[in-house]
Amino acid sequence: MPADNNLDLVIRNADVVTASDRFQCDIGVRDGRIVALGHGLPQGNREVDATGLLALPGGVDGHCHLDQPMPDGMRMADDFFTGTRAAVCGGTTTVIPFAAQEKGASLKAAVADYHRRAEGRAVIDYAFHLIVADPTPTVLQDELPSLIRKGYTSFKVYMTYDDLKLSDREMLEVLDVAREHKALVMVHAENSDCISWLTDKLTGEGRIAPRFHGLARPAPVEREATHRAITFAELVDVPILIVHVSGKEAIEQIRWAQGRGLKILAETCPQYLYLTADDMGLPGDDGYEGAKCVCSPPPRDPENQAAVWRALVNGVFSVFSSDHAPFNYDDPEGKKLGGSTEHSFDHIPNGVPGIETRLPLLFDGVAQGKLSLHQFVELTSYRPAKIYGLYPRKGTIAVGADADIVLWDPARKVRITNSALHHAVDYTPYEGIDVTGWPVTCFSRGDMLVRDGEYLEPAAGRGRFLEAGQPEV
Amino acid sequence: MPADNNLDLVIRNADVVTASDRFQCDIGVRDGRIVALGHGLPQGNREVDATGLLALPGGVDGHCHLDQPMPDGMRMADDFFTGTRAAVCGGTTTVIPFAAQEKGASLKAAVADYHRRAEGRAVIDYAFHLIVADPTPTVLQDELPSLIRKGYTSFKVYMTYDDLKLSDREMLEVLDVAREHKALVMVHAENSDCISWLTDKLTGEGRIAPRFHGLARPAPVEREATHRAITFAELVDVPILIVHVSGKEAIEQIRWAQGRGLKILAETCPQYLYLTADDMGLPGDDGYEGAKCVCSPPPRDPENQAAVWRALVNGVFSVFSSDHAPFNYDDPEGKKLGGSTEHSFDHIPNGVPGIETRLPLLFDGVAQGKLSLHQFVELTSYRPAKIYGLYPRKGTIAVGADADIVLWDPARKVRITNSALHHAVDYTPYEGIDVTGWPVTCFSRGDMLVRDGEYLEPAAGRGRFLEAGQPEV
Amino acid sequence: MPADNNLDLVIRNADVVTASDRFQCDIGVRDGRIVALGHGLPQGNREVDATGLLALPGGVDGHCHLDQPMPDGMRMADDFFTGTRAAVCGGTTTVIPFAAQEKGASLKAAVADYHRRAEGRAVIDYAFHLIVADPTPTVLQDELPSLIRKGYTSFKVYMTYDDLKLSDREMLEVLDVAREHKALVMVHAENSDCISWLTDKLTGEGRIAPRFHGLARPAPVEREATHRAITFAELVDVPILIVHVSGKEAIEQIRWAQGRGLKILAETCPQYLYLTADDMGLPGDDGYEGAKCVCSPPPRDPENQAAVWRALVNGVFSVFSSDHAPFNYDDPEGKKLGGSTEHSFDHIPNGVPGIETRLPLLFDGVAQGKLSLHQFVELTSYRPAKIYGLYPRKGTIAVGADADIVLWDPARKVRITNSALHHAVDYTPYEGIDVTGWPVTCFSRGDMLVRDGEYLEPAAGRGRFLEAGQPEV
Amino acid sequence: MPADNNLDLVIRNADVVTASDRFQCDIGVRDGRIVALGHGLPQGNREVDATGLLALPGGVDGHCHLDQPMPDGMRMADDFFTGTRAAVCGGTTTVIPFAAQEKGASLKAAVADYHRRAEGRAVIDYAFHLIVADPTPTVLQDELPSLIRKGYTSFKVYMTYDDLKLSDREMLEVLDVAREHKALVMVHAENSDCISWLTDKLTGEGRIAPRFHGLARPAPVEREATHRAITFAELVDVPILIVHVSGKEAIEQIRWAQGRGLKILAETCPQYLYLTADDMGLPGDDGYEGAKCVCSPPPRDPENQAAVWRALVNGVFSVFSSDHAPFNYDDPEGKKLGGSTEHSFDHIPNGVPGIETRLPLLFDGVAQGKLSLHQFVELTSYRPAKIYGLYPRKGTIAVGADADIVLWDPARKVRITNSALHHAVDYTPYEGIDVTGWPVTCFSRGDMLVRDGEYLEPAAGRGRFLEAGQPEV
Repeated sequence: MPADNNLDLVIRNADVVTASDRFQCDIGVRDGRIVALGHGLPQGNREVDATGLLALPGGVDGHCHLDQPMPDGMRMADDFFTGTRAAVCGGTTTVIPFAAQEKGASLKAAVADYHRRAEGRAVIDYAFHLIVADPTPTVLQDELPSLIRKGYTSFKVYMTYDDLKLSDREMLEVLDVAREHKALVMVHAENSDCISWLTDKLTGEGRIAPRFHGLARPAPVEREATHRAITFAELVDVPILIVHVSGKEAIEQIRWAQGRGLKILAETCPQYLYLTADDMGLPGDDGYEGAKCVCSPPPRDPENQAAVWRALVNGVFSVFSSDHAPFNYDDPEGKKLGGSTEHSFDHIPNGVPGIETRLPLLFDGVAQGKLSLHQFVELTSYRPAKIYGLYPRKGTIAVGADADIVLWDPARKVRITNSALHHAVDYTPYEGIDVTGWPVTCFSRGDMLVRDGEYLEPAAGRGRFLEAGQPEV
Repeated sequence: MPADNNLDLVIRNADVVTASDRFQCDIGVRDGRIVALGHGLPQGNREVDATGLLALPGGVDGHCHLDQPMPDGMRMADDFFTGTRAAVCGGTTTVIPFAAQEKGASLKAAVADYHRRAEGRAVIDYAFHLIVADPTPTVLQDELPSLIRKGYTSFKVYMTYDDLKLSDREMLEVLDVAREHKALVMVHAENSDCISWLTDKLTGEGRIAPRFHGLARPAPVEREATHRAITFAELVDVPILIVHVSGKEAIEQIRWAQGRGLKILAETCPQYLYLTADDMGLPGDDGYEGAKCVCSPPPRDPENQAAVWRALVNGVFSVFSSDHAPFNYDDPEGKKLGGSTEHSFDHIPNGVPGIETRLPLLFDGVAQGKLSLHQFVELTSYRPAKIYGLYPRKGTIAVGADADIVLWDPARKVRITNSALHHAVDYTPYEGIDVTGWPVTCFSRGDMLVRDGEYLEPAAGRGRFLEAGQPEV
Repeated sequence: MPADNNLDLVIRNADVVTASDRFQCDIGVRDGRIVALGHGLPQGNREVDATGLLALPGGVDGHCHLDQPMPDGMRMADDFFTGTRAAVCGGTTTVIPFAAQEKGASLKAAVADYHRRAEGRAVIDYAFHLIVADPTPTVLQDELPSLIRKGYTSFKVYMTYDDLKLSDREMLEVLDVAREHKALVMVHAENSDCISWLTDKLTGEGRIAPRFHGLARPAPVEREATHRAITFAELVDVPILIVHVSGKEAIEQIRWAQGRGLKILAETCPQYLYLTADDMGLPGDDGYEGAKCVCSPPPRDPENQAAVWRALVNGVFSVFSSDHAPFNYDDPEGKKLGGSTEHSFDHIPNGVPGIETRLPLLFDGVAQGKLSLHQFVELTSYRPAKIYGLYPRKGTIAVGADADIVLWDPARKVRITNSALHHAVDYTPYEGIDVTGWPVTCFSRGDMLVRDGEYLEPAAGRGRFLEAGQPEV
Repeated sequence: MPADNNLDLVIRNADVVTASDRFQCDIGVRDGRIVALGHGLPQGNREVDATGLLALPGGVDGHCHLDQPMPDGMRMADDFFTGTRAAVCGGTTTVIPFAAQEKGASLKAAVADYHRRAEGRAVIDYAFHLIVADPTPTVLQDELPSLIRKGYTSFKVYMTYDDLKLSDREMLEVLDVAREHKALVMVHAENSDCISWLTDKLTGEGRIAPRFHGLARPAPVEREATHRAITFAELVDVPILIVHVSGKEAIEQIRWAQGRGLKILAETCPQYLYLTADDMGLPGDDGYEGAKCVCSPPPRDPENQAAVWRALVNGVFSVFSSDHAPFNYDDPEGKKLGGSTEHSFDHIPNGVPGIETRLPLLFDGVAQGKLSLHQFVELTSYRPAKIYGLYPRKGTIAVGADADIVLWDPARKVRITNSALHHAVDYTPYEGIDVTGWPVTCFSRGDMLVRDGEYLEPAAGRGRFLEAGQPEV
């Protein structure tokens, strides 16, 4: 390294862990990128000693909702500032929320609107997934190809929710565009008609408490849609990614497909490791408290939790995301009443917050010996970066990568409590859970945003939009 | 047996085979029913010597189309006279065709109309399945329960065909009625949107020859709908029967469900044992000849044929039916041109004729040692009679049962040729196939309708409508 | 039926149930065989009214041990008199116990010895399975073929127990003889080395109570041997029958093989429906009481019980036997101490008594709607008769069959208690279990041996040896 | 990097590929280790320009046989010099051959003898697996624990071959030692008795040509032993690695176990991607030529080849090794006659040479798009280094790792021919196969041993023994 190569930052004595490797060295950073890994690097303008800490690539949260326009007056508590602040405090340095098309509206308009929401607010870098809710010929033939070229290379489609769901034919057409233009389709796989039929049965019988949400979406409902989505991918001959897989029945379908040689990727989330259907039946707050844990697919039971852990270890899952859905509990439009005067489970906004707790909740599995450090990095940073076209800028600690680095204390014990979190939501479903391991110091492109667990108040808006490249599946 | 008990008919020295048993004895018949089985029965008014022949319960064809009103000017070549004549010449003594509701019309009207078509024409007994194409609240809450009580205890639903298909929600509702009123739902399982998307792709590329019918309905299309139907049955907690299963992918799903303890019944047909996709590509008649073998799901390949044989032996299938669809080949509205001036595979009326050849084609598997005589009786007579609520009148040779008896020559070698068949269709897809074993003499309620292979011209209309009881699955 | 055809016995108004059929009629018997089924049969020398009762074919117990010579001073409590008396009181009219070769001894000698034990003692008919413990060239090339011709057409081989087990090579050779001479091999499938290794571990740690028997033979030990036996059958190309399958892991292997088209038959027993591993840990009698429930493979848990019920219903199992092993509990050589001064689970004679309770325990499943009457007959009488070459004499109610008939009261409620049973064993593992349905009157070849639940003391020795024909699998 | 840190070697402009990452940089080497990765590293004593080439971690061949003492006068053509020379010419920089215990002899003696064979001969680094053929109490309690502490942390056991095979009990005991002392057991899984029984059948019928080798070891023979080995690992609760998996039946078992959460690792080899059973039937050389392709398990068919490729991609396999078995074809003791005057397939020494062709044959799959560059590195270098306790010295390109680096030309097209290979064997089974991609320049601990495909004749004996650490599975 020539003497004139000044380093902006040197992290000393790092115990670096990537998706495959672990090595001890100094990390040299210049202009926001890693430029050298070695022993005895020259003095940097800023020096940080990482002795005793792990240096991990910053987390990439491949599935989170921030400031997303909602129907019916509902609104998300987190905008891009509070959401990304919470993310980086939890060790995540890249987020990929959703620019959601409304039925009848243009996809490009959704993208433009969403950029306005992010700009000036985000504190870390971000890319956008697209939600395709209305695949008109214009969308399929013009907007999508054009947006893919501009760095929006992943779309999400829904098989349920009236304002979002696609018909089977529409799904095939979206997948076909993805195949031709080498984008990746994420699928929310639940059978809509089954849900509506079961919901009508339950509410017709007066079974409206939060816990009936789980009975309205039993495992076969998810399994069926998963099998169907796999079939579409097989017919179109294109990879897909099944998001937020909740348990063993869907896992069985995905693993069956993978065994046949199909490229079926899958994601799971903290709620399927830490919550169960019983949590939706919590008795607090006059029986409404369970609403805090309502998400779709719903949490299942301990046997399913074990199946999800197993599938994280044996390679069924590629991605571990938060599916952060920042709805307040105690708002008029929040999870408690869902905008109605009378509570009913089918009015509850679906989803739970979790952008800050995602990494510690999974890392606790590392601490318990359930999965390896490399699997942790792979699931939370490396693979989402690859799959969503952000690698090699994100997802690793290597020469040339962005200096998105988290110094992690593997021994720190923390009890999760909402008062200590940085999102704007009025609760966390993980209140009171103890974990081992915590991200203590976080860098985004070489800028230290968090020091020893304390958020350093950088300017909102320093985060940059990332044009995603071709997904590597 | 008191001396005053005169017997109308005694079949002597019968080698009786039922679904489970085989025994040598005389069969005594009075008033159309079997009243005695024993050695040395008293003299009957009519005596028939069955020495050297098997006495089997007459076949029950649980899936055949006769004189069914069709859209678009198409018409079936067989009415109840020619169709049931062909049936009995092939060893079948009971048929269960379909009273098909039209969208927007009443189901009861369809039943009434269909009775008019059968009465005065059928030469053997018959029951009706209902086709539910438009499950309005009236149909679900009024017509179906009322019809079930009147002896129409099985319905068919379609997951494809624009004029017939139900939505997922509608399927759930029909299944729920079946559960409550103890009827059985038969399912045509193919994914409609996949077919239309593939068809549009193929025809858009000018790939319109008959053989492209197979490419428009590949195995995953059937497998997906099969899995979906199974899921509906699981959610509703009701048995279903998947009709005309074509090969190993759908079989895998059915067997998986059966292993989980679900009551998923299944049917296959001769076309999946004897035809392949190549038959839809026959070069004759300017390339149209393959249209003769077009049916849905389409025939697959030899590996799938082997899988179907295996599943007949190991219990996956309960029923072996003809799915007789009597469309002429060389009519203006027939399979060759399908009512268009220009041929395209998507205009071909789906289905093949086979009501007369069903039993001999399967019996050849007995002759070859692939399945047992008891399995033959079970698949072709006993189980359809049980499943469709016609047992114990039909489906066995036992005291109290109708004297629907076929004397079968297990050694007779026959080459199938359309000129020797008794249906009104201008071809058979099995032309030239050699089989061993043939029904030589057939009785319906003690009346001999076929003698040594010759049809005896009984009065059209002797056949009676059978009120079906509760399905036994 | 000519007037000179006198009937020895007529059972009036029978509600006859066979493996497939159910019909109401009189049953006419002459010379020990059924000669007529019909309405209004002529007067018989003996008349029995069966109104309100089911007439079932007498049970065939395809797996029971009676008066079998044992090593180490152990002895069985039941000889052929007490054992067959108990059998017929439980509705079983045919037993097939085992003529067991000792290592180093002749198989023919074992058969001759065993005939001496049966003659003059058995009250119902019996056939013999052979246990092949020492397949020398003489046994393989001479004794087995000769014995097969003489009516011993099924052999049992063991994959565990030091005095019985065969090597893999020996198993292949026995299977090859079975293939060539069309006999059927029954397999006790547990991995011997795994058991000895686990047993040594457990006893070395002082874990010797009865309940550790279960830990010494966990499900994978049975699953492995099952898979291995299936492989041998596949390589040799011959059917086999896996006996006393205990739960879902072995069932998974068997069902996998059946799905591939292999002829793998399977048997289960009452102990796998009614006992669990917890029963081997019963605290009574200073902690020895659990020994009463020790058998191999061991009972598992409720989830496995449910899997066994499911596999009875969906066709995985062909045979339901007792595996009656009549060891006293409170003998010096009995199950309590197993011939030692100090108890250790590995000294306990394996097996539980159950020849009399087999049918009522399964019939209770019919009463509860778990399986059908026809499945009951198939599993307990028809299929064992077919598989072991005793059909059509045994296993059905049909013209020509032996008049082995059980009149069964489907509504009778009975609490099982050893004091009411007819075997010579000092306990039953099913003490206190309530069942619905009981065999009240039993005929063997037309002789009434049990009337209204009371044993009628026929002469010991009226039972006859049955030469078995070729197995029908 | 301080100015006084002289670099021995700098590889410029490397396109580095590891198991997970790819980055462009210079690689700085000092004292045989990588000390810096970065842009613009200072001048090294030696400079190599890697422009246009991939820089991969040197291959780790986790399964190869070199100079291994053989019974019956057979001998291996490759000693440690020729074998490691061939290895490095094929891009492999670490080999792990086998120190094989003879029955009745000490394991430590085998290790000492094997060190003598390696020292002064090897040109690259090496570790040893142990072959445990006689697990006496001394071996289990003393030798193995002691050897594990000294860096021999993997053992191989055989389920076949008379001079090597262990009983089930012995396997359990070896696995238990591995569990306690954290070593890894590799398993050759074929059922010995099945092979001997089939071999006797075949040779007894005069079917002795090389191709009958395949019929003596059909897929179920391998599948059975694989299932059995998995069961042992499950009971002992220890990971195992199944070596040289040949096709879909064994893969099915392994994947089933992995899905249940068991740590079952698996290896495959080039012969299962490139050879089929037909190659053992090659007509050349009077019908003996097929002997060149005889190995165990035998090559199967194209459908199995496809299954092996698929399992390389979807994660069933962790390791891709050569199983290099350097037997000459045309020696008296060679594969042609196997030491007999008369050929018979059961005399043929088992195994094929392949240490030099391993990497190019797999890389061709990268060139064809079947698997990724990262999967290539993972299977051939990274995972064997981790699994066999050689990481992080071997298996990656990272700061601190040995500078075992291969510069690979991904576009170079080569036709494999034995005359161009560097082993001492008189044939290659891959003669005439064309591949794309070749290792052109290879470094071992910073020493260039191969330059542009030419072997540079370093001193024999420069290779060092590697003490293996704890396996990371």
